[in-house]
Amino acid sequence: MPSSSYKQLEQRFARLGRLHDAQGILHWDRSVMMPTGGAESRAEQIATLDVICHELITDPRIGDLLDAAEDESLGDWERANVREMRRDWTHATAVDAALVEAKSRACSACEMAWREARPKADYALVLPYLEEVLRLTVETGKAKAARFGTSAYDALLDQYEPAGRAADIDPVFDDYAGFLPDFLDSVLARQARETAPIKPRGPFPVERQRELGLRIMQILGFDFHHGRLDVSLHPFTGGASGDQRITTRYSETDFTSSLMGTIHETGHALYEQHLPKGWRHQPVGNSRGMAVHESQSLLMEMQASRSREFLSFAAPLMREAFEAEAGDGAWRPENLFRLYTRVSRSFIRTEADEVTYPAHVILRYRIERALIAGDLLLHDLPGAWNDGLKTLLGVVPPDDRLGCLQDIHWYDGAFGYFPTYTLGAMAAAQLFDAAGKAIPGLPAAIGRGEFKPLVDWLTENIHCKASYLSTRELLIAATGRPLDPAIFKAHLKARYLP
Amino acid sequence: MPSSSYKQLEQRFARLGRLHDAQGILHWDRSVMMPTGGAESRAEQIATLDVICHELITDPRIGDLLDAAEDESLGDWERANVREMRRDWTHATAVDAALVEAKSRACSACEMAWREARPKADYALVLPYLEEVLRLTVETGKAKAARFGTSAYDALLDQYEPAGRAADIDPVFDDYAGFLPDFLDSVLARQARETAPIKPRGPFPVERQRELGLRIMQILGFDFHHGRLDVSLHPFTGGASGDQRITTRYSETDFTSSLMGTIHETGHALYEQHLPKGWRHQPVGNSRGMAVHESQSLLMEMQASRSREFLSFAAPLMREAFEAEAGDGAWRPENLFRLYTRVSRSFIRTEADEVTYPAHVILRYRIERALIAGDLLLHDLPGAWNDGLKTLLGVVPPDDRLGCLQDIHWYDGAFGYFPTYTLGAMAAAQLFDAAGKAIPGLPAAIGRGEFKPLVDWLTENIHCKASYLSTRELLIAATGRPLDPAIFKAHLKARYLP
Repeated sequence: MPSSSYKQLEQRFARLGRLHDAQGILHWDRSVMMPTGGAESRAEQIATLDVICHELITDPRIGDLLDAAEDESLGDWERANVREMRRDWTHATAVDAALVEAKSRACSACEMAWREARPKADYALVLPYLEEVLRLTVETGKAKAARFGTSAYDALLDQYEPAGRAADIDPVFDDYAGFLPDFLDSVLARQARETAPIKPRGPFPVERQRELGLRIMQILGFDFHHGRLDVSLHPFTGGASGDQRITTRYSETDFTSSLMGTIHETGHALYEQHLPKGWRHQPVGNSRGMAVHESQSLLMEMQASRSREFLSFAAPLMREAFEAEAGDGAWRPENLFRLYTRVSRSFIRTEADEVTYPAHVILRYRIERALIAGDLLLHDLPGAWNDGLKTLLGVVPPDDRLGCLQDIHWYDGAFGYFPTYTLGAMAAAQLFDAAGKAIPGLPAAIGRGEFKPLVDWLTENIHCKASYLSTRELLIAATGRPLDPAIFKAHLKARYLP
Repeated sequence: MPSSSYKQLEQRFARLGRLHDAQGILHWDRSVMMPTGGAESRAEQIATLDVICHELITDPRIGDLLDAAEDESLGDWERANVREMRRDWTHATAVDAALVEAKSRACSACEMAWREARPKADYALVLPYLEEVLRLTVETGKAKAARFGTSAYDALLDQYEPAGRAADIDPVFDDYAGFLPDFLDSVLARQARETAPIKPRGPFPVERQRELGLRIMQILGFDFHHGRLDVSLHPFTGGASGDQRITTRYSETDFTSSLMGTIHETGHALYEQHLPKGWRHQPVGNSRGMAVHESQSLLMEMQASRSREFLSFAAPLMREAFEAEAGDGAWRPENLFRLYTRVSRSFIRTEADEVTYPAHVILRYRIERALIAGDLLLHDLPGAWNDGLKTLLGVVPPDDRLGCLQDIHWYDGAFGYFPTYTLGAMAAAQLFDAAGKAIPGLPAAIGRGEFKPLVDWLTENIHCKASYLSTRELLIAATGRPLDPAIFKAHLKARYLP
C-alpha cells in the first residue's frame, strides 16, 4: 500500500529540515570557528545545499501531494503542518530559479560593496549595487504577491513574519510615532534631574565575563546539554535542532552590553530548545516567525532582566565575578538599574534603548515600504533617512555611516524584516504582562533568580505551540487579545516615568 | 549545444565534493564542538547527506556519461579524473542501497556494543554484533569483487588503498615478520645497555602545550589561514578543502605524545593543504589513498621529527615553553631523542614504537584476511590474536581489552584499512630517503627548523599529484622505484642499531 500523501510530504520535509539543520551548523561554524581561508569553500558548500533544498521543495510532485493531503483525514497538527508546508512551497515556487540566483548574486555583490562603503560613509559607492538588489527584490515581491494575493511588500514581510500585513502595522507604528516625542522629552527631563549612573570601572577580563554569562544562562534555564556559548563579531542564535548555539562578544572595558546580549540570545535559544520534539524537522515544528522570536529574546532581556528585581539579584553576582569592592556604589542595584535603562537620542539602532528603538524601526519600515512601492527612489534614500529621523527622534546623523549605511539588511536583500523588531518588543511586553498575571509573585521570583515559573509559562504558551497557531492566534491564546501596543506603552511609562 | 559528457560529470562530482566538504565540517564539529545532546540530530543530518550523496553517485545517467566521456578527447588530468570517477561509481553501484543501509545499521549497533565491551574486556558481549558486521562486510566485499574482478578482500582494501592487492602486501609483510624477532632482540639488548632516558617532569599546562604545538605547526609550514588546531578525544585531521582542521589531546603529566601527535596530524594536513586547487572537489583532486596519506604524517613524525636533528632544534623550544631549568638533563637533545625512540614489546598498537608497530598491523592484516576468506571464525578471534602476537612480538595480552578489543576498526566495519598504516610507514622511509638525496643538507636544515625544502619537495612530488597517478606510479615518479621495504629496514637499522 502506498503511504498517504501526507506521510510522503512529511518524509520530504523531514529531509529538508535535516539539511537546514546541517546548514545551521555550517553557518555557525563560519561565524565562530572557520579560518578566513575557508570562506570560498564554505560558500560553495552552502550554495550547493541551497540548490539541493530548492530542488527538493520545488519538485513538481509536491504541489500534487499538497492538494491530495488537504483532502486526507488528518489530525489538527498534521493539518497545520500541511498549511505551513504550502506556505513554504508557495514562497519557493513563486519565483523561478533564475531570479533566485540573480538575487543571490546581487546581494553578495551589494553586501561586499556595503562593507567597503560603510566605513567611508560613501553611499554613492554602494548605490548601483543596491539599485540591482531593490529591482530584483521588487520582482520577487511581485511574483510572490501574485501567488499569495497580497501586496508586494506584504509578500516580502511574510517571509519573516507569516501573515504579517502592513495594514495592521501602520496604525501601531503611527500611534507610537505620535506617542514618542512628548514621552521622550519627559523621560529625558526626568533623567536630567537625577544624578547620572556610575559606570563600573574595568578592566573586565573576558574569562570572567564568560563565566558570569554562563552562570546567568544557567539561571535562565539554558540547557547546556543541547547548546553552547561562543564568541562572534555579530551575536546571534544558531545551530541545529537539539543543538542551540548562541554567541556574544566581549569588551574588556564594558561588560554590561555583552551580558545583556547573552541574555537576549538566551531568550531566542530557550524558544528553540523548547520546540516540540515530536515535530522536529517539520514546518509546523518551527518557531512561529521573527516577531515571536524577538518577543522571546526581548522578554528575557528588556522585560525580565533590565528590571529592578533581576538587577538586585544579579548585582552581587556581577560584583563577585569581577572582584569589585563591596562598597563601590557602581555595583548597587539601583545604579545598575539606571545604567541599564538609560535613554538617549542616538543614531545607531543596535545601540538604542527600548524607548527610542521603535523610532529607528519605524523609520526603516516607512522607507522600505516607499522603496518597494516605487514612491521613493534610492537616490533620495539618505535625505529621506535624515528627514525621517529628525521627525521621529529630533536628531540628524552627521554622515551616512551613522545613517542609512548602518544596517546590513537592505544591502543583503532583507526588505520586510525590520518591523519584526518592534512587533516583537510589543509582544514581549504583552506576554510578560500576561505571565505576571498568571504567575503569583513573578517579580519577587525573578528577584530571587528563579526563572522556572516564567520559562515554564512561556514554554507552555509559546514555545510548545511552534507554528501550530498564527502569530495573532498565539497571542490571543496566551494573553486573551491580539497585539495591543498600549501594554508596551504602559510598560514604558511604569519604568521610565513612574 | 549540450555540454560534453565529461563536463556534465565534472559538475555532478563537484556537487558531491562540496557535500563531502560539508560533511567534513559536520564530522569535525561532532568530535570537537557539539554538545552531547546534539548527537541524535547530527546523526540525522549526516545520514541525510549520506543518502543524498548515494543518490547522486548512483544516478543511472552516470554510467552512460562515463562511457561517453571515455570516448571524448580529454587532457591527461581529465582522463585520470574519469578513471577516478569510475572507481568511485563502481564502489557505490556495486552494492544496493539495502545492503549499504543494513551494514550502516549493523556497524552503529556493533560500535555501541564495542564501547561497552572494551572496558569490560568482554568479547562475548560484542560477538553477535560483530558476526553481523562481518557477514555484511563479506557480502559487500563479494559484490564489489564481482565488479572489480578481484578477491573480496582486495575489493575491501581498494576502498582505502586504491589498487592495493594482498598479493603485493603478503611478501612485504612476511619479510618484515621474519626480520623483526632478531632485530627487536638486538635493539632491546642495546637499549638495556644504555642508561634509561629521563622523563621531563611536569605538570605541563595545557595552554603552554597548545602554544608549543602551534609554534611547531608553523615551523612545519601549516597554513593557519586555511586551518585550525583543536582538541578531541581521538586526534584526527578533518575539515573541508581549504579548511584543514587537526586535533590533538593533552595530558598535564606528559607533553611528548601530544606534541608528536600534533606533528603527525600536521603531516596529514599539509598533504590536504597542498592538493591542487584547480581540481578541488573532483575525484582526481583528492589525496591518493590512506597509505600515501599515512606516509605524509609518518614522514613528518617518524622520519623528520623523531630525529636527532629535529630534537636538537626543538629541545630549547620545549624547555622554554615549560620554563624548565637550563641544566635539567631531561631536556637535553640526546635524552629527548632516546625518549622519543624508545622501543618495547607492548600490547596497544596506537602506543607502539615504529619498530614494533608493523607487528601489530601484520597481526590484524593476517586475521582480517582469514576472517573475510572464511578461514577463521569470529569465535576463534581472541585465540588467533593472542597466538599471533606471541609469534610476532613474543608477548600475550592479559585480556581482550589489551587484545582484540583495542581498536574500533572492525567493530565499525573497516576491514582492509589496517595494512595502510605499515605501507605508509614504509613509503615514508622511502620518500624521506629520496628527499634526502634530492635536497643537499636536508638533515642540517631540519636541525635549524627549516622545513621548507622538505615540504616543497613533498608538495611537488606527492601533494600536487593528488590522485593523478596510482600509488605505485607516484612512488616510482618520486623515488625511482616501487615500494621497497628494504629502505624502511635500513632506516630502522641506522636509527636503532647504529
